[in-house]
Parts: sequence; structure tokens; C-alpha cells
Amino acid sequence: MTAVMTSVAFDAWMKDVQSQMESALLQHLPAVTVKPVRLHEAMHYAVLDGGKRVRPLLVHAAGALFDADAAELARAGAAIEMIHAYSLVHDDMPCMDDDALRRGKPTVHVKYDEATALLVGDALQSQAFDVLANGNGAPAQQLAMVRLLAQASGSLGMCGGQAIDLSSVGLSLTLPELEQMHQLKTGALLRAAVLLGAMAGKVLNQEELAALHKYAVAIGLAFQVVDDILDATADSATLGKTAGKDAADNKPTYVSILGLEQSKTLAEQLRSDAHNALEQFGDKARRLREIADLIVQRKA
Amino acid sequence: MTAVMTSVAFDAWMKDVQSQMESALLQHLPAVTVKPVRLHEAMHYAVLDGGKRVRPLLVHAAGALFDADAAELARAGAAIEMIHAYSLVHDDMPCMDDDALRRGKPTVHVKYDEATALLVGDALQSQAFDVLANGNGAPAQQLAMVRLLAQASGSLGMCGGQAIDLSSVGLSLTLPELEQMHQLKTGALLRAAVLLGAMAGKVLNQEELAALHKYAVAIGLAFQVVDDILDATADSATLGKTAGKDAADNKPTYVSILGLEQSKTLAEQLRSDAHNALEQFGDKARRLREIADLIVQRKA
Repeated sequence: MTAVMTSVAFDAWMKDVQSQMESALLQHLPAVTVKPVRLHEAMHYAVLDGGKRVRPLLVHAAGALFDADAAELARAGAAIEMIHAYSLVHDDMPCMDDDALRRGKPTVHVKYDEATALLVGDALQSQAFDVLANGNGAPAQQLAMVRLLAQASGSLGMCGGQAIDLSSVGLSLTLPELEQMHQLKTGALLRAAVLLGAMAGKVLNQEELAALHKYAVAIGLAFQVVDDILDATADSATLGKTAGKDAADNKPTYVSILGLEQSKTLAEQLRSDAHNALEQFGDKARRLREIADLIVQRKA
Repeated sequence: MTAVMTSVAFDAWMKDVQSQMESALLQHLPAVTVKPVRLHEAMHYAVLDGGKRVRPLLVHAAGALFDADAAELARAGAAIEMIHAYSLVHDDMPCMDDDALRRGKPTVHVKYDEATALLVGDALQSQAFDVLANGNGAPAQQLAMVRLLAQASGSLGMCGGQAIDLSSVGLSLTLPELEQMHQLKTGALLRAAVLLGAMAGKVLNQEELAALHKYAVAIGLAFQVVDDILDATADSATLGKTAGKDAADNKPTYVSILGLEQSKTLAEQLRSDAHNALEQFGDKARRLREIADLIVQRKA
């Protein structure tokens, strides 16, 4: 992978956003002292203290384009991270991917039980919409943000991608089919993160929307290509989850279709597409560019 | 049970709302021809052609108080029915109640598979918020409706009640504990149905809110008391689901705590409480009163 290291300033910004996000998530979740205590503990376990917070980073980086309010970005970031966390909890369940390890910790159904994992995911989804609908933006814009998150999460977004993924196990997908699946399964929520951050700043015009959509599609695919590369090359300890799982599960991946070297070239191409899409935004898009770099360069 | 039969006019109104609801649900769900087809088919299977549509009936009956727009009531009814349907799909799964029969048909995980059932529930929840956030009311009011539905669905509402229910299997609950559990598990969504219908008509003042809340709490408890009576006395064919399941699962019920006769008396008292709460609304609350009667008199 081409060695374009992210800057010291970016690393500091990222740590700052990640730390703010931890506070925002804690603030926007019911406290663990509130009944039912076990459910709220499990919701905290699923959401807090984990992950790179890629989606909240995108929210904040896109928010910087239009100087969006920090508290509203934290709110949108928390909402989308709750959706992401719920999807991981459900995906890890025995009837789906049956994964015992996530971010280096036992998955929710292992730590608690399956019924609790099911409810944790369900309740986190409701919580995400409650949090977003409580925003202080203009009500019409806030409603548009709720619709965006709902569409990105549902059967025409993340859940739809998950369904296609499940039905494609053991099949030999073409590259366009694989892309379409990932554009729903992981891409929809990444696109929503970019757009929610920007929408927290202003009502987007068609040109801005198109550029951000192009950027988000590129990083969404890059994210998945790199995931597949890492699944094929890294070990479980580095990943914090079971490595080599896709191959073991006979799932089609970029590496299985394109091979390792061509997958790396594709990731680099997508990084470049992402940068190019941001041209009109000038220096204000700096963090979005650096996130594209981060996504392609990550080791886990 | 005291024989207060609902009127011919009410039956016609109910059938009309139920039929409108079928159209509204169909309109607000992605078509089965849209990809992923199997997921959308399963969502239709879970939602359409089933149930008494008690929550949509409440939405429409409460909407009549303030002459709310019919299309907006259909929208709110569809949203809340999608939440209800998703909760049934997840509750029926093997890790929860493990039920094979629902409304006289195989449950979603039996008809399809567990992973699909999980995704159907997840996607229906997203769809519900998308539908409600697309409403044509004043944006601030529409946002308030989204928050209400999210709170009624989440860990402080339906999911929270479900968690308490799971953790109470085999325990001997007191009557207040049993009530609190049901006020969350089924009551929260019934209350939301009443309030969403009214809110589709106008911004409620404190007095209206208090009266509707009182009505909804009474019918919510009545609903559960009658459920427990039916579970203990009716057969599976009549119920369209497995009868005697609560006793078999060693779950505390009104019948197990109060006995059958006292449970019937309580249901009748709650029906009377519901009627009394509606006094200020005069004849416009006719349908809400009749729904209270229906809930207490139903045989399935």
C-alpha cells in the first residue's frame, strides 16, 4: 500500500473527535442506573469504548465544510454510531455471522445472551432516531436528517445489503454485484455519515450533494476493499476480530475476485477518486481527504 | 365478561380502517419487486394481511378528536404497525419466545429463516421512522411524533418491557411489578398510538395530554389482562397462536397472580377508567370508547 501517512495534526483531531464521541454517546444513552439495568449495561457495552469511530469522524469532517455546530455534529455522530453498533451486535449473532469476538472483546450475545443481544440492537436503533430527532437544527432539516438515516439503515440500505450478503454465501458474484452489495451493506451508512455532517451545517445544493455523494461512494468502496485485504492478510489479534473468516465462510470478496495486488491498486484508485470529488471545497475538506487516506492505510 | 357489544356502526368503521390500513401499509413498504426481493417479500409477509390493527384503530380514533387529516393518520398508523410487526417477528424468534405460529400462519423465522427474520425486524423499524418522518404535518410536530415513537419503542418503552419480561421468567412478580412490565412491553406502543393520532390533528395541551395518557394507560393494562385471560382460557385455533404458553413458560400473568375471576373484574374496571378519562372530549371520543370495549370483549 502506498505510504501516505496522515499528519500529526490529523491524528490529534481524530483523537479529539473520538474522545468527544465517547462523551456524546454516554450523554445520549440512558444511564446504566436506569431500569432495565441489564439492558442498559449491555447497550453501553455494545457502544462505548470501541472502534475507530469512522462514521462520527466523517460526520465531523463533513460538518467542517460548512462550520456546523459542534454539539449537533456530536448528536448526529452518536445517532449514526448507535445504528452502526446495533448492526454489529445483530450481525455477530449465531443466526448471522456467529462471531464470538468484536473489537477484541466477547460479542454481546456471548457476554450476555442472545435475547439480550437482540433487544440491545433493537433498542439502539430506536435510540438513534430519538437522538437525531431531538436535534436543535431547523425542524424541516432535522426531519430530512432522520429520513436520511432511516433510509440508509433500512431494506434499501444497510439491512438490504446484509440480506444480499447472506444470500450470496457460496455464490460467485461478479464485481458489479459485489460492489452493489457493499454499497448497501456498509456504503449506505458511510454516505449517510458524510451527508448528515454536511446537513448539520446547511441545506445542501445539488452540486454539493453530488460531490459529497461521489466522495462517500469512493470511500465506502475503499473501506470494503481494504476490509477484504485485511481479512486475507492480517491476524485476529491485530484486527480485534476473527481473521480469514470470509474465506472460511466461502464469502465472495474483492481479494477472491480480483486477487490481492489488484485489490490494493483499486483501493489506491478509490482514494484518489475521493480526493478529486472534494475539489470545490478547498481546504475546508482537509479532514475528509485525510479520512480517505486513513481508510486506505489502516492496518485493522 | 360483561356483554357490552360494540355497535354495527363501529364494526363498519373498524373494517374500513383495517382495509385502509392494508392499503397504507402496502403503499409505505418497498414493493416486493424491489431488490432484495426475498427481504421485501418477508417484510410484506410479516406486516400485511394479519391482526386486528388495534394500534392503527387507536391512531384513527384519537385522530377523530381533532379532525386530523386521513392520509396523515394512515401514515402514523402504518409507522406504528411496522414497529409492532417488527417486535412480533423478533419476539417469535428461537432466542426469545420461540413461537412457530402467529396470526394462524408460520412465524417469519419458520417460513423464511432466522437471519431473514432478524433483518425483517430491523428493516421494518427503520421503515417506520422513514414513513413517519415523511409526514406532511408541521415539521416541528412531525419531529415530536418521531421522538414519541422512538421513545415508545426503545429501552425505556417496548424493548425495555421485553427485557424485564425475559428476566422475570420463573420469578414471582408482585402486581405492581407485573403492571410496570406491561406498561412498557405493550402499553408504551398503545399510548404512542393514541398520542400520535391526536398529534396528527393538533399540538396537544397539558389537559388533553393528561386525559389521553390516562385513557391509554387503562386500555394498555386492560389489553394485557385480557391477553392473559385468553391465554389461560382459549384454544390455539381461536387465538391464532399457541395457547397456554405463558403458564407453560412459567411466566407471571394477571391470571396467575389474581386468579381468573378477579382478572375479569379488573378488565372491566379498566374499561370503565378508560371511558371516564375521555369525558372532556364528548361524542368525538366515541370510537376511543368503543375500542376500550373491543379490547375487553375480544375473544382472540
